[in-house]
Amino acid sequence: MDVNAEDFFFSGLNKPGNTNNRLGSNVTAVDVNKIAGLNTLGISLALIDFAPYGLNRPHTHPRATEVLTVIEGTLHVGFVTSNPQNRLIFKVLNAGDVFVFPEGLIHFQFNRGHKNAVAIAGLSSQNPGVITVANAVFGSNPKIDESILAKAFQVDKKVIDYLQSQFWMDNNN
Amino acid sequence: MDVNAEDFFFSGLNKPGNTNNRLGSNVTAVDVNKIAGLNTLGISLALIDFAPYGLNRPHTHPRATEVLTVIEGTLHVGFVTSNPQNRLIFKVLNAGDVFVFPEGLIHFQFNRGHKNAVAIAGLSSQNPGVITVANAVFGSNPKIDESILAKAFQVDKKVIDYLQSQFWMDNNN
Amino acid sequence: MDVNAEDFFFSGLNKPGNTNNRLGSNVTAVDVNKIAGLNTLGISLALIDFAPYGLNRPHTHPRATEVLTVIEGTLHVGFVTSNPQNRLIFKVLNAGDVFVFPEGLIHFQFNRGHKNAVAIAGLSSQNPGVITVANAVFGSNPKIDESILAKAFQVDKKVIDYLQSQFWMDNNN
Amino acid sequence: MDVNAEDFFFSGLNKPGNTNNRLGSNVTAVDVNKIAGLNTLGISLALIDFAPYGLNRPHTHPRATEVLTVIEGTLHVGFVTSNPQNRLIFKVLNAGDVFVFPEGLIHFQFNRGHKNAVAIAGLSSQNPGVITVANAVFGSNPKIDESILAKAFQVDKKVIDYLQSQFWMDNNN
Amino acid sequence: MDVNAEDFFFSGLNKPGNTNNRLGSNVTAVDVNKIAGLNTLGISLALIDFAPYGLNRPHTHPRATEVLTVIEGTLHVGFVTSNPQNRLIFKVLNAGDVFVFPEGLIHFQFNRGHKNAVAIAGLSSQNPGVITVANAVFGSNPKIDESILAKAFQVDKKVIDYLQSQFWMDNNN
Amino acid sequence: MDVNAEDFFFSGLNKPGNTNNRLGSNVTAVDVNKIAGLNTLGISLALIDFAPYGLNRPHTHPRATEVLTVIEGTLHVGFVTSNPQNRLIFKVLNAGDVFVFPEGLIHFQFNRGHKNAVAIAGLSSQNPGVITVANAVFGSNPKIDESILAKAFQVDKKVIDYLQSQFWMDNNN
Repeated sequence: MDVNAEDFFFSGLNKPGNTNNRLGSNVTAVDVNKIAGLNTLGISLALIDFAPYGLNRPHTHPRATEVLTVIEGTLHVGFVTSNPQNRLIFKVLNAGDVFVFPEGLIHFQFNRGHKNAVAIAGLSSQNPGVITVANAVFGSNPKIDESILAKAFQVDKKVIDYLQSQFWMDNNN
Repeated sequence: MDVNAEDFFFSGLNKPGNTNNRLGSNVTAVDVNKIAGLNTLGISLALIDFAPYGLNRPHTHPRATEVLTVIEGTLHVGFVTSNPQNRLIFKVLNAGDVFVFPEGLIHFQFNRGHKNAVAIAGLSSQNPGVITVANAVFGSNPKIDESILAKAFQVDKKVIDYLQSQFWMDNNN
Repeated sequence: MDVNAEDFFFSGLNKPGNTNNRLGSNVTAVDVNKIAGLNTLGISLALIDFAPYGLNRPHTHPRATEVLTVIEGTLHVGFVTSNPQNRLIFKVLNAGDVFVFPEGLIHFQFNRGHKNAVAIAGLSSQNPGVITVANAVFGSNPKIDESILAKAFQVDKKVIDYLQSQFWMDNNN
Repeated sequence: MDVNAEDFFFSGLNKPGNTNNRLGSNVTAVDVNKIAGLNTLGISLALIDFAPYGLNRPHTHPRATEVLTVIEGTLHVGFVTSNPQNRLIFKVLNAGDVFVFPEGLIHFQFNRGHKNAVAIAGLSSQNPGVITVANAVFGSNPKIDESILAKAFQVDKKVIDYLQSQFWMDNNN
Repeated sequence: MDVNAEDFFFSGLNKPGNTNNRLGSNVTAVDVNKIAGLNTLGISLALIDFAPYGLNRPHTHPRATEVLTVIEGTLHVGFVTSNPQNRLIFKVLNAGDVFVFPEGLIHFQFNRGHKNAVAIAGLSSQNPGVITVANAVFGSNPKIDESILAKAFQVDKKVIDYLQSQFWMDNNN
Repeated sequence: MDVNAEDFFFSGLNKPGNTNNRLGSNVTAVDVNKIAGLNTLGISLALIDFAPYGLNRPHTHPRATEVLTVIEGTLHVGFVTSNPQNRLIFKVLNAGDVFVFPEGLIHFQFNRGHKNAVAIAGLSSQNPGVITVANAVFGSNPKIDESILAKAFQVDKKVIDYLQSQFWMDNNN
């Protein structure tokens, strides 16, 4: 193959992602869609920026484990184990701390502090995928039938209507 | 190894699971915890029973694709693709219909009809795991901080309090 | 990718396969050739119908473990372990019973009863393949040299000639 | 780990295997049972010796592809593809020729000549397993019911009785 | 399993590694030996610190691809493709740049500048291993025979003697 | 697929490779580039010929474990374990001896005797790749900066200049 350095290169993780949104967070994925040379190699990276009180909402990666390290700031992070235990495994991380989110489990990161926070994550797939729980459940296109979601979440259909009428932004880029 | 037939055997899928619960559904998993001989072999089965209007709520299998076939009744099924599209891929299934839920994606099955429904599913892992979204997000132990969930789902903390105070039963056995 | 529900769907397993053949059995495979969306996902299904005394002859799946569950009727099933032990692991299965046939091992299912039987199997590959021993050994195209088979099976060449002159139907569809 | 060279070493492939048996062949496997250091590494070797007219009978490796090279002599080799085609892929090999037997397919090697032949094979598993068709089908312990085999091979039960009463030696060591 | 947050946690990557050595570099690996929860999950991280003119010498990871991102400073990095081309794929990286070193290939990072540099790398194995070429070739224990190395590197045995008499420090921790 | 025997066949390993070169060795790889039918099957072979005092220099296979057996002659072989131990695992092999070189580790084979030697190796990939250390480090195209190599190998730049000016032949075919 006639590869060159550009096939293995990506630039721009030094520029903070735009966190000027209602979540106060931004994920910049560096996966096979950004670096063609990652094809079949089973790994990718992501940069996660947090404004004060910024949240990377509960989500899963359907094809990857994530190992995150905090570059700057303080993050409250956690994942929840599978049924039936659904244990929350939780930790407050400071700069230099590393945490693992095992493949397919729902996890989140929250910047409780009043300063920015930055993290870098390695993911065990060149194409890990992201499923934000709120977006997939309440913001799908077309919508999931409200009677299904009302029963699933044990709330009135009005609550589901309200949730489905929201704009569910995606902070992954 | 001194194996015998019992190491590869499980019985009881002819008995309908108990759907006398608020979800009106029951999942009987036949995985490596039930059949030791499945160890390392990359497959398992599940029986899913539905009372009328029974729901198998939105959930994921963190380590498996699922292929479901309807034995009896009618099921409304769907899965949602990853960010950013979050497309709902939806189908009404009758007896003899087969549907695929790709690895790690959020999916559900709902018996809209007034008769029982039964499905059998193959899963591409001897230990696929189940994560029911509502249970993991609102019923974890300990609970996820309500301010995180309020921000994640764009609702008032009171709604989160209400959701977290529910009993989130697990219909997987 | 611009997928839709049809890419993940197959119908027709409610119609009994045609067992009006000398074996009294029929296998309907639902693999990646039937459902394109199974590509790379590592799983498929099969429906197996048996007339009274119907037999699914000794065969292997070169790329898959099989987990079978009996929907209706009674099946005598077994597999044989590798050299040098060649142990027959055998079980009589009734409706609701589940049995595992590990990857690559020779196995069979036989309906000893006088009623129909039906089974559904999950297989740990989207393209498991089927090798019926009799067909591959005695019905290949072109034929395996009769002197090789005579020596392999310790019988007279006339027996091999007889066997090779049979029509070896394939009950897999 | 405190490994040493003996963990990665096996000796003796220079001594011809004992082909003084009714098959006129001998397989010496060098797998993880012989070299502990092969554990998890996904490869093994085998030496196959043939007396004149020696046969390595139709068999499969349930967990491995085989790549064979002839060191000495002439071998008639072949494998049969899966259902429904069951094509015999056949070749006469001389010293220095290489042939591939894909994972799980039934294959054989036969020394048609009046001189000894020797081959070395690489297998894509540290524990490939061997299933000799005749031994597994007619020499299992306990035996497969004769009525099943009579139906499977379309012969009289007497032929099955005869076959099951043979001594099915195993030429794998 | 009775896991807790400590099984998925490591701290200390905020403290610069000790680069006060002749290489002017330090690698802090965060693999399954540091975080037990990474077991079987197929990923790990490493922090690499560089003093001015610090070098992370040519090395390979026998079981992993590496994706590196520069946190601070400027690095000259490269890898060499396999025989017969042995192309050097080379790039100067600044803060925020990402580069891929495919599995098993020899690669290096050099801080040409007069300021410190810091990089974080994701690796596609929980136990990637490191083989520093100079240490493995000239600093093995016991030593490789000097006549072998003299022939391999086309130099006089005195050069090999000199090389083998050096202290080959390991900057991986 | 419309395969035939030629897709699984290669000939010529009976002809000694040309060892009339400064290394006195020759590697004939039989991988997916030579046999298309090996695609995805995870195995390949190589023939290695040695003139007296012939050397197969220190090299790695980035994607494969190698299992070598000596057909003729005597070989001194070894591999070096990863950092920090860098233990040389060493053995003198005679005809019929088998040795394992685990995936990605630097290894070599040397014919110390005054007669030819021949070995056959199985490799656990259809495309294992070869990286000869000397060629990749000192013979890359373009060259690695001499100051980097001088620092990496703790020698004067003149030594690096000398090494980089050599012709680094590749004995792999």
